Amino acid sequence: MGPTGVNAESQDGLIDVKKDINRFSKEHDKVIDLVLRQFRCLIADLCQQFNGGHPGSAMGMAAIGIALWKYAMKYSPRNPDFFNRDRFVLSNGHTCLFQYTFLHLTGYPATTLDQLKSYHSSRSDSLCPGHPEIEHPGIEVTTGPLGQGLANAVGLAMATKNLAATYNRPESGLSLVDNTTWCMIGDACLQEGVALEAIQLAGHWRLNNLVVIYDNNQITCDGSVDLCNTEDVDAKMRACGWDVLNVEDGCYDVEGIVNALLTAKASAKKPTFINVRTVIGIGSKVAGDAKAHGAAYGAEDVRSIKQAFGMNPDEHFVLHDEVYGFFREMIPRGEELERDWEKMVTEYAKEYPDLHAEFMARVEGRFTQDWTTLIPRKEDFPTSPTPTRKSSGLVCNPLAESLPSFMVGTADLSPSVNMIWKGKVDFQHPGLQTSCGINGDYAGRYIHWGVREHAMASISNGLAAFNKGTFLPVTSSFFMFYIYAAPGVRMGALQRLQAIHIATHDSIGTGEDGPTHQPIELAVLYRAMPNVLYIRPCDSEEVAGAYTAALGARDTPSIISLSRQAVEQYPQHSSRDGVQRGAYIFIEEDETNGGADVTLIGVGAEMCFAVKTREVLRQRFGIRARVVSFPCQRLFDAQPVEYKRQTLQYRSNAPRVVIEAYAVNGWERYADAGFTMSTFGKSLPGKDAYKCFGFDEDVIAPEVAKLVELVRRDGVESLRGEFRDLNPVRHPH
Amino acid sequence: MGPTGVNAESQDGLIDVKKDINRFSKEHDKVIDLVLRQFRCLIADLCQQFNGGHPGSAMGMAAIGIALWKYAMKYSPRNPDFFNRDRFVLSNGHTCLFQYTFLHLTGYPATTLDQLKSYHSSRSDSLCPGHPEIEHPGIEVTTGPLGQGLANAVGLAMATKNLAATYNRPESGLSLVDNTTWCMIGDACLQEGVALEAIQLAGHWRLNNLVVIYDNNQITCDGSVDLCNTEDVDAKMRACGWDVLNVEDGCYDVEGIVNALLTAKASAKKPTFINVRTVIGIGSKVAGDAKAHGAAYGAEDVRSIKQAFGMNPDEHFVLHDEVYGFFREMIPRGEELERDWEKMVTEYAKEYPDLHAEFMARVEGRFTQDWTTLIPRKEDFPTSPTPTRKSSGLVCNPLAESLPSFMVGTADLSPSVNMIWKGKVDFQHPGLQTSCGINGDYAGRYIHWGVREHAMASISNGLAAFNKGTFLPVTSSFFMFYIYAAPGVRMGALQRLQAIHIATHDSIGTGEDGPTHQPIELAVLYRAMPNVLYIRPCDSEEVAGAYTAALGARDTPSIISLSRQAVEQYPQHSSRDGVQRGAYIFIEEDETNGGADVTLIGVGAEMCFAVKTREVLRQRFGIRARVVSFPCQRLFDAQPVEYKRQTLQYRSNAPRVVIEAYAVNGWERYADAGFTMSTFGKSLPGKDAYKCFGFDEDVIAPEVAKLVELVRRDGVESLRGEFRDLNPVRHPH
Repeated sequence: MGPTGVNAESQDGLIDVKKDINRFSKEHDKVIDLVLRQFRCLIADLCQQFNGGHPGSAMGMAAIGIALWKYAMKYSPRNPDFFNRDRFVLSNGHTCLFQYTFLHLTGYPATTLDQLKSYHSSRSDSLCPGHPEIEHPGIEVTTGPLGQGLANAVGLAMATKNLAATYNRPESGLSLVDNTTWCMIGDACLQEGVALEAIQLAGHWRLNNLVVIYDNNQITCDGSVDLCNTEDVDAKMRACGWDVLNVEDGCYDVEGIVNALLTAKASAKKPTFINVRTVIGIGSKVAGDAKAHGAAYGAEDVRSIKQAFGMNPDEHFVLHDEVYGFFREMIPRGEELERDWEKMVTEYAKEYPDLHAEFMARVEGRFTQDWTTLIPRKEDFPTSPTPTRKSSGLVCNPLAESLPSFMVGTADLSPSVNMIWKGKVDFQHPGLQTSCGINGDYAGRYIHWGVREHAMASISNGLAAFNKGTFLPVTSSFFMFYIYAAPGVRMGALQRLQAIHIATHDSIGTGEDGPTHQPIELAVLYRAMPNVLYIRPCDSEEVAGAYTAALGARDTPSIISLSRQAVEQYPQHSSRDGVQRGAYIFIEEDETNGGADVTLIGVGAEMCFAVKTREVLRQRFGIRARVVSFPCQRLFDAQPVEYKRQTLQYRSNAPRVVIEAYAVNGWERYADAGFTMSTFGKSLPGKDAYKCFGFDEDVIAPEVAKLVELVRRDGVESLRGEFRDLNPVRHPH
Repeated sequence: MGPTGVNAESQDGLIDVKKDINRFSKEHDKVIDLVLRQFRCLIADLCQQFNGGHPGSAMGMAAIGIALWKYAMKYSPRNPDFFNRDRFVLSNGHTCLFQYTFLHLTGYPATTLDQLKSYHSSRSDSLCPGHPEIEHPGIEVTTGPLGQGLANAVGLAMATKNLAATYNRPESGLSLVDNTTWCMIGDACLQEGVALEAIQLAGHWRLNNLVVIYDNNQITCDGSVDLCNTEDVDAKMRACGWDVLNVEDGCYDVEGIVNALLTAKASAKKPTFINVRTVIGIGSKVAGDAKAHGAAYGAEDVRSIKQAFGMNPDEHFVLHDEVYGFFREMIPRGEELERDWEKMVTEYAKEYPDLHAEFMARVEGRFTQDWTTLIPRKEDFPTSPTPTRKSSGLVCNPLAESLPSFMVGTADLSPSVNMIWKGKVDFQHPGLQTSCGINGDYAGRYIHWGVREHAMASISNGLAAFNKGTFLPVTSSFFMFYIYAAPGVRMGALQRLQAIHIATHDSIGTGEDGPTHQPIELAVLYRAMPNVLYIRPCDSEEVAGAYTAALGARDTPSIISLSRQAVEQYPQHSSRDGVQRGAYIFIEEDETNGGADVTLIGVGAEMCFAVKTREVLRQRFGIRARVVSFPCQRLFDAQPVEYKRQTLQYRSNAPRVVIEAYAVNGWERYADAGFTMSTFGKSLPGKDAYKCFGFDEDVIAPEVAKLVELVRRDGVESLRGEFRDLNPVRHPH
């Protein structure tokens, strides 16, 4: 049975239906049948050899794979990075053998049969891990945590739309970027919130270049899907602005699937959802059962699978020449695709030399100009107290204006995050007419994510993964709500995808919105998360430093953590270069004068308390305090040991006290004591909230003085092993 | 205009439409008009006084509030905790003035006019914070982070269904629990993934006692909703299994709203979604604009609002006696409700004395029996290597079987998390017939959450908030995916709601599923999150201790972190009592023999490395190592300083080394050095993954020996201030 519900209005791309009219001839059908049988037996073998893995859905999806890799997708096996290739995302990543095997069959050099056999092995050079990973040539994004892949696919499709609207010149017949994004999902991707958010956005943006294929086997780990989901999924997708196609026999009806895929690819107006019924673990004794999902079938069942599929049960990992032959054309086809594209680029270069230069910079992942000159100088910043979120706008907006790779957006906080630059155009479907009159087009680079922080982060990963360096996604929201986005930020870090997350309203200084909006523990997560730079600048100059670090970190997402409230500016002390080293001496005490009695570590919006405490210590207690600014732990960790020792004076008699209105966890590495938070915050105006929790130089200074006294009496060594929590304020939470 | 789409089939509850036929008489209409006008001016005044807050939606929703508090909801102002009251959740929590003001008008004693005026003030005794908080009498749950409230409401409605199915005896006319849950939402709650997950579940469970009222003002912070959402929301809700009603004039048509609410309350089969069109900031010059959302209107506009509503612009905070009089009946009505209910409970006690006793224990928030006797003794556990996730099942399942407050569920990982007890019944609509034949009913206490970790946590908060101690939600999933659930776990901790989260497959020992499934940094978040117990037991005995701590923590959510793989059992060393203290001496070195050279801190599934390293140190290096087991930092922090010193030997010459396959952040408080992870993991079989990252006694012991050598040379004081990362393995991530 073929697809229903939508008519193909046009047809472009590699596969010409008319030319290929005989592809489902009897002869072809026989080969397809063989591919299906051997593919399914191979999957069963690959899981059986190390007694683990996820065979069921991969076996069920075999016909979908044939339809995709043989008849629908544009790609070049010998050049997995061909710029205008279609992007394929396996959002149900546990079925990775499905993708690995088709990469192998279609001739991706890295994915050898030997590599396939390394699935679930103890080989540390395996390219076939338990879930697809971006390092594997031919894999677009790392997937596994369910729902993420679908959101990534939305980002990949947006990338195409934006590049096409920016660079394509259809009037000259020059469409440099016109690829399709294909995404396989299972049931779970229709349950995870991040995917549900992404589905709304794809419908809203009318991403007709996005095709989602639902492996509808109605089985989950727990049993049948109707244990936990009984919605009318087709009706829901239509309500979200998608076209919907159905394929009844997804296990064998390759022709029906191909028709659906090509119809979807031709969709002129909307993203398409193809609902394909399959049977999990088809051929196995547990076919159609939850047991078919996540375990090898056992030697006996694998034998019986092979018998069911007419294969020799004593042979393993069998792929006949006919099977390879069936896919042999994919390599020359891909090379032809590349040649055609290169030719088009050459023509484009002649007609549009400037745009071509810009486009090529982005293809090569370079910034289109020297961004360092776009960052304001210290003297350009205000000297009166200024919220760092405002300073952030001063730095970011000229960058966004000039650098076409910047895709800037906000989770519905435009008035709060200061990310709007002069002449910004929204990323929107050009036909959209909003009630508030703010419209846009696909060339727009300002994104209204809605209140969808998780999708914002995960779709941004898709933008960044389109081609390394072509896009630099910049997201924004209140810092607290990056807890919603954490799974997406993590996936970006794992994949080494650059992104900048502008996190405003950090700490209890946020004020009246109360404890639900005041981050206490979240910075600890991002300081611990591998390959993330969490940077908390204390003033405008440090904001400039934070952006400098974030733009320079081409393999790393950054979170720039900013204040809601106005904070003191320290042009005499603060240093953008210092930010690059993570921590640096902010105010030194003269060594000739005996040096400092204590080192105060100031961080971000709470730097003011360090500076003011220093003053009270001097005036009231006769104690000499030096101040270190510490915007980024990870950058500091990367410094030479000598620099670290000099900055924090490990070897001196001066104890080190960190002052930050966050949970202390992790500061114990750099400090002997801390004036920090151990409870949730409270709804009070920012200044009062600080006071309520003891953040006040008149409370802090006496506690520091007591510590200094202790050190004078017992020696600094006495501090070893027993971190001091100096904040005397105790709240019930 | 009234509601459309559903017919009221039955009518129960307090408001009898026939009796109250005249309520929308002309006389009444005049009072309602006055209430609307004064309510809206009051909101404008309350925001103006401190120049902040969210006036717009509260003003827009005034008529909805009258319909709810006057005509639809069952409650007793003088006893906000009346057990069978309707539950009201303000999911768009920034509109809190809406709720505070109706609590005031209907006579909740705590919510005085003076308290209303403390909104956004610097008063630390304010009951009117920037978002509703559960501590405020009459507020059911703390809301603010968008989407959470809707999920909470689903949990509250589930609680009613479960209690009703368990205790009501309709054959005797005794329905102890039959309340309705009402939930207000704004646009964002239709965008946040957690709410979208919860919407699916409510439809699946056919929670006809749940009514969601959508304040459809089509305005977000950024502008109009169609900037980021253009779905057909009514069609989508129907596809998710909800009834949908519409009210066109939500600003004034109180009668239409009441009809919709009562129709929804009477819905026999499905939850109801009422789509009410309102105007944000109605009466203001910026009405219907994004500017009306989150700022005071300025003195001039507030004057003009008052003029528009026929009020004196020079008077502030005006509420006439007629307005109070309009709500005066709510107190006696509520008292009558309570009396009727108490009478019913008395009758119930006579007819069903045993059930009554159990019910009353739950009403009072007590466990129905002494659970300590249900926990297996040490000698009941296997002595051979056992996965702690399996030990967890041995402890939890008898508890769940016997304690009716346990609502146990899993995010589609039943075969992995071992949470199924003998005779478990699923929580399901009794009419559901699943394809896999596993059915259930509302009295069931095993929940198939689907792959919706976030909704699982947030709905569980609703279950726990129904009435403190009546339910104990127990969730389960892989630990890594509690990163999706983090916003919900946080809200539970903030609200002091007990829950137990069973987090299996912790650390890189998880194996082949790879880095997307291997938590590295997540424990750091939960160790830092206020009021959360993150407990990582090392064997069955410690699992028993973890449950003991978690059950005893009546105001605190716990996460019990468990291994996928089999781990050694240490019946000679491990101690459930030790777990209660967070850390304890696992293996001591004899003091008479000179004491230990080093303290090894073992944690959870990596305890084996500490124990085996100790052996290698002894045999190969002649170094004496003591071992401390450290399952929970927060419990340890609460111990007396003497206990802490004795356990970790702060004052000895033995350096302390923590061994855990997690990010180290925070261990620096307890240790001088760590053998930990600084990168993401890798897809390898668990044992190989450990080896790959250096977790191997033959790698660890020499590094520890070097540290001991250093201390012998330079003294233990030399370790101060410079935490040592001992793991020599460096990976690129």
